[in-house]
Amino acid sequence: MRIVDLIRKKRDGHELTVEEIKFIVGGYTRSEFPDYQMSAWLMAVILRGMSGAEIATLTEAMLHSGVTLDWSQLPGKKVDKHSTGGVGDKTSLILAPIVAAGGLFVPMISGRGLGHTGGTLDKLESIPGFNVNLPPERMREVLSQCGMVLVGQTEQIVPADKKMYALRDVTGTVESPALICASIMSKKIAEGIDALVLDVKTGSGAFMKKEEDAVHLAALMVETGKRMGKRVAALITDMNQPLGLYIGNALEVTECIEVLRGGGPADLRDLSLDLSAWMFYLGEKTKSVEDGRRLAEKMIASGAAFEKFCELVSLQGGDAEALRSPKRLPQAKNQVGVRSHHAGHVQAIDCEKIGIASLVLGGGREKKEDAIDPAVGIVLHKKLGHRVGKDEPICTFHYNSDARLKEAESLIHASYRIGQEPAPAADKLIRKVIES
Amino acid sequence: MRIVDLIRKKRDGHELTVEEIKFIVGGYTRSEFPDYQMSAWLMAVILRGMSGAEIATLTEAMLHSGVTLDWSQLPGKKVDKHSTGGVGDKTSLILAPIVAAGGLFVPMISGRGLGHTGGTLDKLESIPGFNVNLPPERMREVLSQCGMVLVGQTEQIVPADKKMYALRDVTGTVESPALICASIMSKKIAEGIDALVLDVKTGSGAFMKKEEDAVHLAALMVETGKRMGKRVAALITDMNQPLGLYIGNALEVTECIEVLRGGGPADLRDLSLDLSAWMFYLGEKTKSVEDGRRLAEKMIASGAAFEKFCELVSLQGGDAEALRSPKRLPQAKNQVGVRSHHAGHVQAIDCEKIGIASLVLGGGREKKEDAIDPAVGIVLHKKLGHRVGKDEPICTFHYNSDARLKEAESLIHASYRIGQEPAPAADKLIRKVIES
Repeated sequence: MRIVDLIRKKRDGHELTVEEIKFIVGGYTRSEFPDYQMSAWLMAVILRGMSGAEIATLTEAMLHSGVTLDWSQLPGKKVDKHSTGGVGDKTSLILAPIVAAGGLFVPMISGRGLGHTGGTLDKLESIPGFNVNLPPERMREVLSQCGMVLVGQTEQIVPADKKMYALRDVTGTVESPALICASIMSKKIAEGIDALVLDVKTGSGAFMKKEEDAVHLAALMVETGKRMGKRVAALITDMNQPLGLYIGNALEVTECIEVLRGGGPADLRDLSLDLSAWMFYLGEKTKSVEDGRRLAEKMIASGAAFEKFCELVSLQGGDAEALRSPKRLPQAKNQVGVRSHHAGHVQAIDCEKIGIASLVLGGGREKKEDAIDPAVGIVLHKKLGHRVGKDEPICTFHYNSDARLKEAESLIHASYRIGQEPAPAADKLIRKVIES
Repeated sequence: MRIVDLIRKKRDGHELTVEEIKFIVGGYTRSEFPDYQMSAWLMAVILRGMSGAEIATLTEAMLHSGVTLDWSQLPGKKVDKHSTGGVGDKTSLILAPIVAAGGLFVPMISGRGLGHTGGTLDKLESIPGFNVNLPPERMREVLSQCGMVLVGQTEQIVPADKKMYALRDVTGTVESPALICASIMSKKIAEGIDALVLDVKTGSGAFMKKEEDAVHLAALMVETGKRMGKRVAALITDMNQPLGLYIGNALEVTECIEVLRGGGPADLRDLSLDLSAWMFYLGEKTKSVEDGRRLAEKMIASGAAFEKFCELVSLQGGDAEALRSPKRLPQAKNQVGVRSHHAGHVQAIDCEKIGIASLVLGGGREKKEDAIDPAVGIVLHKKLGHRVGKDEPICTFHYNSDARLKEAESLIHASYRIGQEPAPAADKLIRKVIES
């Protein structure tokens, strides 16, 4: 088998066999052929696409490029959730404690923020002392003891993805549903889970602006999961405005605590409960999604979910007291309101710009190497459909440096479209559910 | 400007600007970005194509990646011919002397054989002493003195093509009409010519088996030449059987001498005269192609073309006496006939297999580094439509080693389809002419 022939085969629109895909992924991971052949193949995949069978094989080949976790000794189903990323999207910190408190195992491996979206690891690290880099034995102990563990990706898990993603990033080969699906699903299945709920975002703050693209990717991931023997469902959810009101790492942890304690904004609370409900259902804890929702609500009402989160934070070296008195979380030195230039109703929000405003304040990363400030961010006062008075604050910036304050303010003004006519509130948060 | 954005732009099917294409070709030639980005871009070009304007810009950018030759001091038009390659295709050695004898300049830069097709340089080097590597000053002297010069590619001319072709060869990005067109046209225009005749082969011995593909490439090259201010015409010619009867380097030189002396097989003679006619016409030596044809015939009948070839061989260090007594050319030690297994008529010839049979005898190269034996090759006795008796020789092998004789014989038998019903002779040699 020669890689150049496999490049040609995909270039000419033919379906690759299992052996051929394994040859490509394995060979590339072991550096048996150079980047310039892989990038040509990746571009051919982008432009020719892949069949469902090819995507499942690619996912499987990537999965087996490294170690996979095995929790079969632990008594119960292992479930997880993956989100394609949005602004203010912080449901992991809420649903993982709910689902663990409800009796399932959640071995969650998360990523960091890049560009306009935040990352679960960055949010967790705003809790003083919290360690996201656990050695395998400690990961097992934590999961076994409290039913959940929240850690970062390691070099050992799906090394093919790490190498392929670095190449895709610089060769214009990121935007392929097939490659995105295989990247996500291989990493999630490597976690050793039985079931997975996908939160596929669409709208102005999502990577997929168009709902049809989100639905297409979701369907691919659900099909791939099914082919690999996993129970998978995807919720297509609205990201035309930030989820909840808080954006920024410690700020988002604070908002999660509010939800876990029975409060918090309705949209964040609702989506977290619905995602938890699906996890309970797919993890066979409840007979229906509706029963799952009731169980999730109970875990919050009883305080069990909040206590579970405190337990986890302690086990991973964090200051659990900071959850009980969130003032112990990092606080920015300054606050300033961003005031509306005119009165009216919020017609639309360019959600991506709000994410970038938070990045500009220091809460996010432009490049992977950038440091972030856990304390800074944005608290929104106005969302879609809200009435705004002239000079009324749209949001409040929490900041430590005023170096790029003006830029962040401009982004907020450019983001909010405020018009005279009354505007409808947000669309339904869950637009569609795709089940296998 | 960032290369990754230009890869994405082509990937998404957009037209690149002049500055963008210059950035890509110049940057790659100067190694300012890595092979893995270039190969992704090349694959995007393969699958998305290029507009006529993009191809002309690409050709121009490649042309200016190195030195271009300038013969403007020489009094007269400079013309050349390029063939896409076939089996037994040896017209360059005939038409260049005809056209130079007729008063135009022919500064011809040629290539070597690879795979089933031969190369002009290899044929020339079968003439004892002939030197295809002339320094620039000597090239100018020879061209100036005798009106023609036959040399090989240098590192200084279109270095972008050399680098791009090496990458395309291993990344499945050879088969793009846009890239093939830019590669050929940049090298030919770098020769400093005013007009160019293209011989685009189609059929079982050509790279383009289908006539529509040959026509498409020809039209692109003619359009590109016109956009660059050159007079260009393309002849789409049949390659469903070898051109002439001799295949192999010294053997082909012998057949060229026959044609230049007024003999030789009709198909080779005719095509050489027609290509010469077009060169005379495009080079403004004659008012019509018909007048060009008459002038070409005159150059043979008068002996001027043959004398011109002898003059050139002397000037480039070769043994001109070998042209007058071809037995001085390298001769293979052995000859053997390949006999037909059954009687009938030649219905079809898989011409590529005959080229490979010659390669197998030692007359060609599988890889660029392979050495070739100038003396060996094949003399055909049967062509399309001919009657063949059982055990009658189809062809004669000239060989020095019998290591792969059986393999070559099998290729000949597999190549000839001999059936009972009378078969038509070959199709018209010139199928179509495309003019700007």
